[in-house]
Amino acid sequence: MSVGLKLPTSILPINGIRLSTCCANLYKKKRTDLTLIEFAEGSNVAAVFTKNLFCAAPVQIAKQHLTEYKPRYCLINAGNANAGTGEQGLLDSSITCKALANATGCKEGEVLPFSTGVIGEVLPVDKINTVLPELVENLSANSWLDAAKAIMTTDTIPKAVSKTISLGESAISITGVVKGSGMIRPNMATMLAFIATDANIRKDMLEKILLHAVNKSFNRITVDGDTSTNDSCVLIATGKARHKCIDDQSSEEYAILENALTSVFCELSQAVIRDGEGASKFLTIKVTGGKQQSECIDVAYKIAESPLVKTAFTASDANWGRILSAIGNSGINDLDINNIEVFLDNICIVENGQRAASYTEEKGSMVMLQDEIKLTVNLKRGEHQEVIWTTDLSHEYIKINAEYRT
Amino acid sequence: MSVGLKLPTSILPINGIRLSTCCANLYKKKRTDLTLIEFAEGSNVAAVFTKNLFCAAPVQIAKQHLTEYKPRYCLINAGNANAGTGEQGLLDSSITCKALANATGCKEGEVLPFSTGVIGEVLPVDKINTVLPELVENLSANSWLDAAKAIMTTDTIPKAVSKTISLGESAISITGVVKGSGMIRPNMATMLAFIATDANIRKDMLEKILLHAVNKSFNRITVDGDTSTNDSCVLIATGKARHKCIDDQSSEEYAILENALTSVFCELSQAVIRDGEGASKFLTIKVTGGKQQSECIDVAYKIAESPLVKTAFTASDANWGRILSAIGNSGINDLDINNIEVFLDNICIVENGQRAASYTEEKGSMVMLQDEIKLTVNLKRGEHQEVIWTTDLSHEYIKINAEYRT
Repeated sequence: MSVGLKLPTSILPINGIRLSTCCANLYKKKRTDLTLIEFAEGSNVAAVFTKNLFCAAPVQIAKQHLTEYKPRYCLINAGNANAGTGEQGLLDSSITCKALANATGCKEGEVLPFSTGVIGEVLPVDKINTVLPELVENLSANSWLDAAKAIMTTDTIPKAVSKTISLGESAISITGVVKGSGMIRPNMATMLAFIATDANIRKDMLEKILLHAVNKSFNRITVDGDTSTNDSCVLIATGKARHKCIDDQSSEEYAILENALTSVFCELSQAVIRDGEGASKFLTIKVTGGKQQSECIDVAYKIAESPLVKTAFTASDANWGRILSAIGNSGINDLDINNIEVFLDNICIVENGQRAASYTEEKGSMVMLQDEIKLTVNLKRGEHQEVIWTTDLSHEYIKINAEYRT
Repeated sequence: MSVGLKLPTSILPINGIRLSTCCANLYKKKRTDLTLIEFAEGSNVAAVFTKNLFCAAPVQIAKQHLTEYKPRYCLINAGNANAGTGEQGLLDSSITCKALANATGCKEGEVLPFSTGVIGEVLPVDKINTVLPELVENLSANSWLDAAKAIMTTDTIPKAVSKTISLGESAISITGVVKGSGMIRPNMATMLAFIATDANIRKDMLEKILLHAVNKSFNRITVDGDTSTNDSCVLIATGKARHKCIDDQSSEEYAILENALTSVFCELSQAVIRDGEGASKFLTIKVTGGKQQSECIDVAYKIAESPLVKTAFTASDANWGRILSAIGNSGINDLDINNIEVFLDNICIVENGQRAASYTEEKGSMVMLQDEIKLTVNLKRGEHQEVIWTTDLSHEYIKINAEYRT
């Protein structure tokens, strides 16, 4: 039931990256559920993680390893989030890192662990460790799509994006995969996203680009307003491309790479929304005319997370009163509601805080029938603007989440 | 589909109050949709209103009339919220007040107008004015239940509560009605509530009691986190009971009346939740051990408004990981998650931030099958506590709100 998504094609390998997937029997049904990503020696890695206080055991371990070592592997399991599992969870996550270190000859601290799935159940460590040798043996540069499949939980379709750019004389490739469909209101990063490039860039520059790209993509989406315990986003630069190392934030090369990566991040984050649990619409919420960026974001999320606005979209009902009500609840106390303008695509539905003179229900209904709709709110009090992406709220969402553990 | 609600019986008349309802044809289907409440001369009236910036035209008019006059009438229509209607809406609301003033001989400013229903459509003033003489003619002390019915919109059952207390030698009666089922996250008051007593109390004392009672009742409930444009709560004291006027906040009489009114307010606000759109469960969320009351409220609402927690309750699935995740997202940055305890009724499901040793899925499932469940979270960092009430999120909620205007 995704909106406008197709099975990814022409996913490019990245020089310096190999991947592998297998079935560790973490689901009742047989499927690939374990993924390994290997980075060539010398790769720089930057990552951001959930701000949920109950952050999962693997998130805690990955953060620690990242500060102390230069990572060589990401080990990712679906089917179990290893969250809310206390000391046992931390121990279990360490054990899998250690087992992988033994199988590959790297150090335990060079492994970043990731988990996604049901919260509160103990990680079946033995099942994972048993298949690690198989996983290591099958590493291949061409397994990105397999990885996109093996990290899925309630996702209905694997999500991957590739792009090539020129950096001077060099061709640079970028490939990323993401999983995520529900519990989506990332705060620093979405559920799990892994993006790699062969660009040659200093680690601190890579970290800056990651923050910029995340703030324009994964930190601008919401399905249900619930921030996961396991959100993680990892950006790897293998440095295998033949260009001078990027070490200056004001250089043209930095700008080109930042743009390209941000565009891949946006496409990946939008894919999460297009595959949002129960999504029947892909909604772009743009708020312009704000005094600050923060108030644009507040208004956008208040609209995007209102169950009444979401259900109106599900029904293709141009119930703009609910949109006004959501704006009125967004906590901007000195907002003059008599200036507000609201557009559905190019149709003006509200002007001067009330129904536009030119608006008719027919015009609104035409837009509402579309799968993809852009809602624009002009606050008319400043120069700032922000864009976020969200879904509607359908019967299917309830079905998926009421039956998740059955 | 309400939870534990029955048709109200033994609703007491209040000395000094008369009511009347009729059909003004504001719905396609024939039903009563217009209500008049008359208060005896000398009655004191206190009211609180929505904090939504897009507050409806009648709310703006009622606020203004209340500051300038001593009200004699509430005129309430269902079927049209007269919100998002700009200058026209203010004019329309005034016209109905003026027409009622003509029909009763009172001043326009002595009428408080209220509207509830679809947002953004023009109020059909003529339909209302036509039936005002009939409405005035039929005023009766015994029409409380009729009023509870005529103010309903998506409510499935009329909601009314009565109580009597002794104040020294005097018997005091309290009767209240409320409507509300969706767009429920009141901020000062719920959709529409009218509570009357024959107690004799000074206006400033009555206002204090109203604020206290609202903060323990209508400001502690949520269905979907959406604050309406029309929320209003009116408390009337006719002063017809034969006791000395209450004019001292430290008196025993003040305390007795405050307690009794708060109890009626709580029962009414809980009725709104029991009749919440699509509700299949009535959930009490109690947060204890907070450093401040505000953090208890933040945690409680974060749990109550998480679509993932709500759908788990719909499915009777004790998915406590989603509860932990919601607590972790509630914005208390110095919270030590390793101290958290969570109870479903008397079953401890989480201790020290992880699954309780004594907990089994069977124990959790037994509680989850109930219609009424109390969820208790102990933050273990202070002495404050708060209680709020909410519902689950079911297919029925989607159905009601996707089809609201069709």
